[in-house]
Amino acid sequence: MKEHTIQLNLSPERKPKPQSADLGFGKIFTDHMFIMDYTEGQGWHDPRIVPYQPLSLDPSCMIFHYGQSVFEGLKAYLTEDNRVLLFRPERNFQRLNRSNERLCIPAVDVDMAIEALKQLISVEKEWIPKWEGTSLYIRPFIIATEPFLGVKPSSRYQFIIILSPVGLYYKEGIKPVKILVENEFVRAVAGGTGEAKTAGNYASSLKAQEIADRKEYSQVLWLDGVEKKYIEEVGSMNVFFKINGEVVTPALNGSILDGVTRNSVIQLLKHWGMTVTERRISMEELREAHQAGQLEEAFGTGTAAIISPIGELLWKDEKMIINDGVTGPVSEKLFHTITSIQGGKEPDPFNWTMEVEQCIEVK
Amino acid sequence: MKEHTIQLNLSPERKPKPQSADLGFGKIFTDHMFIMDYTEGQGWHDPRIVPYQPLSLDPSCMIFHYGQSVFEGLKAYLTEDNRVLLFRPERNFQRLNRSNERLCIPAVDVDMAIEALKQLISVEKEWIPKWEGTSLYIRPFIIATEPFLGVKPSSRYQFIIILSPVGLYYKEGIKPVKILVENEFVRAVAGGTGEAKTAGNYASSLKAQEIADRKEYSQVLWLDGVEKKYIEEVGSMNVFFKINGEVVTPALNGSILDGVTRNSVIQLLKHWGMTVTERRISMEELREAHQAGQLEEAFGTGTAAIISPIGELLWKDEKMIINDGVTGPVSEKLFHTITSIQGGKEPDPFNWTMEVEQCIEVK
Ligand SMILES: Cc1ncc(COP(=O)(O)O)c(C=O)c1O
Ligand SMILES: Cc1ncc(COP(=O)(O)O)c(C=O)c1O
Repeated sequence: MKEHTIQLNLSPERKPKPQSADLGFGKIFTDHMFIMDYTEGQGWHDPRIVPYQPLSLDPSCMIFHYGQSVFEGLKAYLTEDNRVLLFRPERNFQRLNRSNERLCIPAVDVDMAIEALKQLISVEKEWIPKWEGTSLYIRPFIIATEPFLGVKPSSRYQFIIILSPVGLYYKEGIKPVKILVENEFVRAVAGGTGEAKTAGNYASSLKAQEIADRKEYSQVLWLDGVEKKYIEEVGSMNVFFKINGEVVTPALNGSILDGVTRNSVIQLLKHWGMTVTERRISMEELREAHQAGQLEEAFGTGTAAIISPIGELLWKDEKMIINDGVTGPVSEKLFHTITSIQGGKEPDPFNWTMEVEQCIEVK
Repeated sequence: MKEHTIQLNLSPERKPKPQSADLGFGKIFTDHMFIMDYTEGQGWHDPRIVPYQPLSLDPSCMIFHYGQSVFEGLKAYLTEDNRVLLFRPERNFQRLNRSNERLCIPAVDVDMAIEALKQLISVEKEWIPKWEGTSLYIRPFIIATEPFLGVKPSSRYQFIIILSPVGLYYKEGIKPVKILVENEFVRAVAGGTGEAKTAGNYASSLKAQEIADRKEYSQVLWLDGVEKKYIEEVGSMNVFFKINGEVVTPALNGSILDGVTRNSVIQLLKHWGMTVTERRISMEELREAHQAGQLEEAFGTGTAAIISPIGELLWKDEKMIINDGVTGPVSEKLFHTITSIQGGKEPDPFNWTMEVEQCIEVK
């Protein structure tokens, strides 16, 4: 691994840390952030940890007009013996680079990014909340900063990492949600950007989410953009179904995000001796399984909620209640196991966690 | 029309104006910009003209992460007798509101937006270049500014207008371009955001454009996202074909932008007594017309280039040379007529131009 000299410019002031009850999701940010610049011809340069502060950007910067950007989301956890653990961070930065490739953004060095993250977290260790179910949410992102109005890849970028102490994603804890199957709006299509974690995918999802909210459904289930038949994802989560004893999840087809939680769930289920299949699943098949009484469980997977059981699916006019609307045993066990590994409470058979050594002494 | 009190805060310094040779596209910005804020519960407020300056935004602002944004592009022209003309600006702001609707952004008052634009241009009149083919490019845009990491519509926005003096879009003037038909990547799909002018659409187009550049093609021709059979748009332009004496253009189907130039071209052609049809057109049909010697002209339409004739289309391995690679008479006449109306050199039978009265005296 190369030496990466990250400049350290600590904030003279420290904000008060939130209490457990004040923790929401993504509202509170820590005292520092990481920034690194990219300039064409020079590559990525000037990595630095600086006080958390507004970005000053020319109004013509390409991010505002052409949306050239990518991001990631992962978490750091505090163990009972006061160690800090990251969960498979290399997968997030590898995925960031795959998103970069799709969006014509120059790749970042994965080792360097992990090193930067570790140093930043080391500085902000006091910000990691210690209560059950809480963590420090990590948001790495890259934005195009060339001041130019014209559709082409930017010649300048900023790579930034900000941190936010967060509570449970769903305030009620692991509790089944109601999901609306979306028949009109499309999130992504083969040949589009569905596989990449880029801002535009989320902007285009807002309209369907707004309609779901109005109907009091918590998220939408996206179908494929071509035939609107096959299941893709649930809101910002991958999705799994237990049908007649077997677990199935949509195969990675180019329009689905390759979730870190999804991958971990597949590995765990196989480790437990269960059958897991990645393949195409149609709504029609799901409905038939439900009618035959074989749709035993359904759940979403993602960094924010980890496992989010699905208690009801509404498809056109048909309501499918799953497992009587209560959390099923596989969902429950996955949630318990993954969160326990993340928090260092259970053995980590796959070496998923990475410890953040206290490399910077901050008083 | 309501009274809209726009605060005026003029810059103490003025930048030097560019010479003809320095005019590119979207690189140089004027001394002032227009800004207006939106706050949930309060609506749009505090419209103001201020010195052109960087935006100061929290790194958690939603625009950086979820791409909730829309924009427009139009131009102001200086006539030979020193009047300032806008070209159909109401259509741009109406389209902005349709984009807003798709992106869950609150609508702006069209009259208010036009009034703001007029005042801004009035302040910046000296910036409008006077040379043949030049103009003042106008970029209105809206960005989500709530500092929050979570996928939902923002509770705060900024509506901004910036201005850039521009030269000819293609340095060589009206000259046929080579276009690559894109078979892998998709710009937009029914149910997506293709009809809206939102940042993400342009980010997702970069990859295909990069490949076209490498093959020395100037733009890509997008096919529909479902069957990859039907013609949608060319780069950031709508597209027209003259086949056996008739002009055809893809119908507005939800994934195509409703271009102001497209609409103007349709009206002009009808005015001239030509047959224009908006319908679905497949690449297969185009190829057959070409083989039969009936593909007489092809051209893109858009605010930047107005009319951009197409001299060659590459579809898979098949090269189609159109009109011997030279500009056809219909393309030529459209370019000449539209630019003449825009510049006040020809009668304006449709009342397309709107004069900007010198409402603010600036020394
Ligand atoms: C669209 C989408 N799908 C799936 C996921 C789940 O991915 P992960 O498990 O890596 O958080 C996310 C969120 O991260 C997402 O945004
Ligand atoms: C995708 C796309 N299509 C078409 C157009 C042409 O629209 P207009 O004629 O309004 O400039 C534009 C550019 O403005 C565009 O971005």
